[in-house]
Amino acid sequence: MIKIGIAGYGNLGKGVEKAIELNSDMKLSAVFTRRNPKTISLKTDGVNVISFDRIADYKDEVDVIINCGGSACDLPLTTPKIAEYFNVIDSFDTHAKIEEHFQAVDENAKLSGKSAIISVGWDPGLFSLARIYSQAVLSIGNTYTFWGRGVSQGHSDAVRRIDGVLDARQYTVPVMSAVEKVQNGDNADFSAREMHTRECYVVVENGANKKEIERKIKTMPDYFADNDTTVNFISEEEMKHSHSGLPHGGKVIRNGKTDENINHTVEFSLKLDSNPEFTGSVLVAFARAVYRLNEKGETGCKTILDIPPSLLLPNEVDNIKLI
Amino acid sequence: MIKIGIAGYGNLGKGVEKAIELNSDMKLSAVFTRRNPKTISLKTDGVNVISFDRIADYKDEVDVIINCGGSACDLPLTTPKIAEYFNVIDSFDTHAKIEEHFQAVDENAKLSGKSAIISVGWDPGLFSLARIYSQAVLSIGNTYTFWGRGVSQGHSDAVRRIDGVLDARQYTVPVMSAVEKVQNGDNADFSAREMHTRECYVVVENGANKKEIERKIKTMPDYFADNDTTVNFISEEEMKHSHSGLPHGGKVIRNGKTDENINHTVEFSLKLDSNPEFTGSVLVAFARAVYRLNEKGETGCKTILDIPPSLLLPNEVDNIKLI
Repeated sequence: MIKIGIAGYGNLGKGVEKAIELNSDMKLSAVFTRRNPKTISLKTDGVNVISFDRIADYKDEVDVIINCGGSACDLPLTTPKIAEYFNVIDSFDTHAKIEEHFQAVDENAKLSGKSAIISVGWDPGLFSLARIYSQAVLSIGNTYTFWGRGVSQGHSDAVRRIDGVLDARQYTVPVMSAVEKVQNGDNADFSAREMHTRECYVVVENGANKKEIERKIKTMPDYFADNDTTVNFISEEEMKHSHSGLPHGGKVIRNGKTDENINHTVEFSLKLDSNPEFTGSVLVAFARAVYRLNEKGETGCKTILDIPPSLLLPNEVDNIKLI
Repeated sequence: MIKIGIAGYGNLGKGVEKAIELNSDMKLSAVFTRRNPKTISLKTDGVNVISFDRIADYKDEVDVIINCGGSACDLPLTTPKIAEYFNVIDSFDTHAKIEEHFQAVDENAKLSGKSAIISVGWDPGLFSLARIYSQAVLSIGNTYTFWGRGVSQGHSDAVRRIDGVLDARQYTVPVMSAVEKVQNGDNADFSAREMHTRECYVVVENGANKKEIERKIKTMPDYFADNDTTVNFISEEEMKHSHSGLPHGGKVIRNGKTDENINHTVEFSLKLDSNPEFTGSVLVAFARAVYRLNEKGETGCKTILDIPPSLLLPNEVDNIKLI
């Protein structure tokens, strides 16, 4: 049994907990949190919740820590720290800073003789694999990534920060006519606006200036200004009833050529009822790989691109049969 | 420059030749054939065509041989033979015999200190990867493979062997209602008949008994009896005009659950204008990997599941950017 520890018990940590239950060669050994451990009750019986400050004390009781913190402020600090004592995996998703994060984790993991994989999930993660495999095979071509329809946490948070907003949910929605063009081999250059629209569902305070809130959302740079955005004001009840899930998904499509009129389209797509539960499932499969890497003496940091797929499945599955 | 040799110059060998041209870190060094080399003219200038019997003489002039022979009779003999002298890769696609083929190639490659990858293409190949990754991530679920719409060489050949048939082309066609069911999360058990139909285009001799030929096709065990098959008799001109390409494609879809009502669908699909040109492109990308494996001293036989995706791209591509 591979003994897994979860660091951070938010949506993603809970998704990881569920995924561990579905894999018979693993068990959850401990959950580490920055909150007061007494305020947290796990779904799994008989597992201790421990203050993150005491994580090093558990270094002989856990094989792999799945770090479920946030990419912006948490993972850059905690994954290198955890790598001092444990094999570790995270879903760091700030694309522009992956290299920097890699260096920090690699240095500590090499010193401690542990193994790590960063940036595992579906994007970055399975979508990265789709981009690499399809580009390797079709060297001449274009790759397109569409996200959604799904809830973007970052965009939802951005709306929540506006004065007068009590709650918000933002759906990223691919423009289907653009998706179909790409699926049919069109190699057009699309603007952000041509690829995705944004739908916001917003609960506001009594008497809030809805017109002004809508204007602030639609003109917000980096988040909404470059897309066609619709804003729907709804009640708290409707938010709870219709927008409590965290579905997501998307597509990576590469169109390539091997001759003037010989086109090939490679498409990888995901349709997910729960983003954190699926991301948790990806992390758990790669936690198996990080454990095996360390068993083989391959220490230091890796990315999903360094992992042979044969390391991902439990022993009872005959890989050769899946070829 | 990675120096590639092609063994076998049929449709697949020609596809490999085109793919090499599209990758600037490789060049075609020689083509080996069982036919009279003088009867073969290559697309590439300045490359020699050499009798397969003399392949060992070229062991210092070629880095990787891409073996483009047929799976039924050729590859089981020639890939192990080639592994005595060269790094080698093939697209062996008889699923049931992959393990046996692996052993034969592995033994010889280990003795010679060379590296090999067998069963590389799209199925087996990229579809195997889709099956492995999606099963690793969604441990509870069902995987479905649909092929087509595309030309099946094996089925076309089977029709050609019938008395009175001059030429034939067989298209494997997925049943779209079954595809849609699976895409919508249905985990039904489908029979062969419910998943694929078969369309045959047949040119017959003057005065042939069409009724009898149609009956023979539709009742042929293993090939057609288990599917709804349509037979269309056409002229030689129409065959040439409308059925000279070798398009193919298909989908691997896995439906999995992380909770009772939380479903996830992972889909990988291909739409290919030319099966041999795409398969050739996959082989060329993995030829780069087999070359690098040997440089690192990893000798013996591998499958696509043992290859980290980071080995596939040319040096000028920054893998980290594609994460």
